[in-house]
Amino acid sequence: MRIHVCFADLKTEPWVEGLRSALPQAEIQAWTPGAAQADHAVVWAPPQQFLDEQPRLKGIFNIGAGVDALLKLRLPPEAVVVRIDDGGMAVQMAEFVCHAVIRHFRELDGYEADVKQGKWSFRRPRERSDFPVGIMGLGVLGQRVARAVGHFEFPVLGWSRMPKALPKVRCFAGDGQFGDFLAATRILVCLLPLTPGTQGIMNAKNLSRLKPDGYVINVARGAHLVDDDLIALLDSGRLAGATLDVFQTEPLPPEHPFWRHPRIAMTPHTSARTLRDESIAQIAGKLLALERGEPIAGVVDVERGY
Amino acid sequence: MRIHVCFADLKTEPWVEGLRSALPQAEIQAWTPGAAQADHAVVWAPPQQFLDEQPRLKGIFNIGAGVDALLKLRLPPEAVVVRIDDGGMAVQMAEFVCHAVIRHFRELDGYEADVKQGKWSFRRPRERSDFPVGIMGLGVLGQRVARAVGHFEFPVLGWSRMPKALPKVRCFAGDGQFGDFLAATRILVCLLPLTPGTQGIMNAKNLSRLKPDGYVINVARGAHLVDDDLIALLDSGRLAGATLDVFQTEPLPPEHPFWRHPRIAMTPHTSARTLRDESIAQIAGKLLALERGEPIAGVVDVERGY
Repeated sequence: MRIHVCFADLKTEPWVEGLRSALPQAEIQAWTPGAAQADHAVVWAPPQQFLDEQPRLKGIFNIGAGVDALLKLRLPPEAVVVRIDDGGMAVQMAEFVCHAVIRHFRELDGYEADVKQGKWSFRRPRERSDFPVGIMGLGVLGQRVARAVGHFEFPVLGWSRMPKALPKVRCFAGDGQFGDFLAATRILVCLLPLTPGTQGIMNAKNLSRLKPDGYVINVARGAHLVDDDLIALLDSGRLAGATLDVFQTEPLPPEHPFWRHPRIAMTPHTSARTLRDESIAQIAGKLLALERGEPIAGVVDVERGY
Repeated sequence: MRIHVCFADLKTEPWVEGLRSALPQAEIQAWTPGAAQADHAVVWAPPQQFLDEQPRLKGIFNIGAGVDALLKLRLPPEAVVVRIDDGGMAVQMAEFVCHAVIRHFRELDGYEADVKQGKWSFRRPRERSDFPVGIMGLGVLGQRVARAVGHFEFPVLGWSRMPKALPKVRCFAGDGQFGDFLAATRILVCLLPLTPGTQGIMNAKNLSRLKPDGYVINVARGAHLVDDDLIALLDSGRLAGATLDVFQTEPLPPEHPFWRHPRIAMTPHTSARTLRDESIAQIAGKLLALERGEPIAGVVDVERGY
């Protein structure tokens, strides 16, 4: 069995070594043009040339949770696309989102600004029940975030394409219930896969349906958000603020207004990182199961886009 | 049955009204000097005169979790001192401490500083297992914080005067195990009651026993910490930083170095506020149970100090 590792902008060596330890029976190498045919590939944003040269691939293991970049390419006809379905990312996502929710709810930015001015300030405590958190996307990451937000006793709502039932989450599904979901949400968290159907979903029309003083947390993909619509709603006071970790173009261009907007907290795509050791163990397990013809979790429906 | 409400620096009216609704059978008033003898009192930092004038009090209900200010006074001989044992404070404490832990662990201050300079930065993810969180004080608040920190999969340690056993918490007790607790802790959270035995417990000697790059979160009382010792350890690089919500003198005097220290995040005693409605309901329930001679939670051991 031969496995190629092919990454756009990430060092391959530690992954090649880790995979060799986990799968000593396999021949594992960093792909170079013209290399021999492989059975499986471990990839991150590979070039089209790689896929064109490897028509016999059975499994393509994407080391991130989002496969939108990969699905833009022409794939080998028989290949199954598999994504990391946790790999240590879920708890990171939970803590990143909870940090943003707590920081906003408890007005910690405001206190920090006061302290910088030497001001010992008082703010009236706000009611948790006035801050329902609505999560778009209820996959592995969305469910973990819902559990974490619920741990702090915020009302939790969830919206997904297909109906789901989760403990202590008020679940909405499909286009028909999207308006009701938005109208009941004050803090909106985006954890959707990026597909033609979800691109630009956070636009002026939808964001205007949130409760007054709504807040937006985007930890999915930059293309879920219409940047100018967000800025207009923040500047008009319709929305109270936003925490953004992902952007249409990354790194975010220096001239982009997000960098300096007073109501936007931004981070450089750091909310949840693929952790190498956990991911390698997961990929090795799934790859062996796939070889044995067993069902595995995280297989991407290429038509659906996630 | 007569109840007096006596607060140092808080409006009494909403409490008097709330208590009247909860206990319609009782005569409830804001205390004024020379008022008739009451059976119970609801207090926050009352003057000595109040207690001297009310020798027949059976129950003194303190509306905060910390009774250190009250116990400095001479109390009526028969009075039972009762403190709020949650009143909505535990979840606030959990979210405040988790926010501080996540902010430090995920280097969010560093990212924020980079963003202010227009820098799209990368920091190597850190290992959760390298950030054991040690909680001093395992009462209602400490236990709730332990559960919240554990939710994010940090190793959790706890230290209390008497031995305790808590799920998923490595528990230490008494002076004999204090050194081992500190040596195994990287992020130290103080939730102790303030007593002669715990005053100044966060001093140079004890803080120097933490793991390298230790971090201090004080959400108990300012007097638990020796201010100059913390600053010396931060400036020498022995400690990485601190989040402080409580201070020896509050409001913190303008000339105090904490206001402007680059490695200290401070807030004006806002980590957990007594929530009026929840507290009134709790006090009313306990007061009736006390009248019926039933055991109640939150009775203070005056000798012990909490």
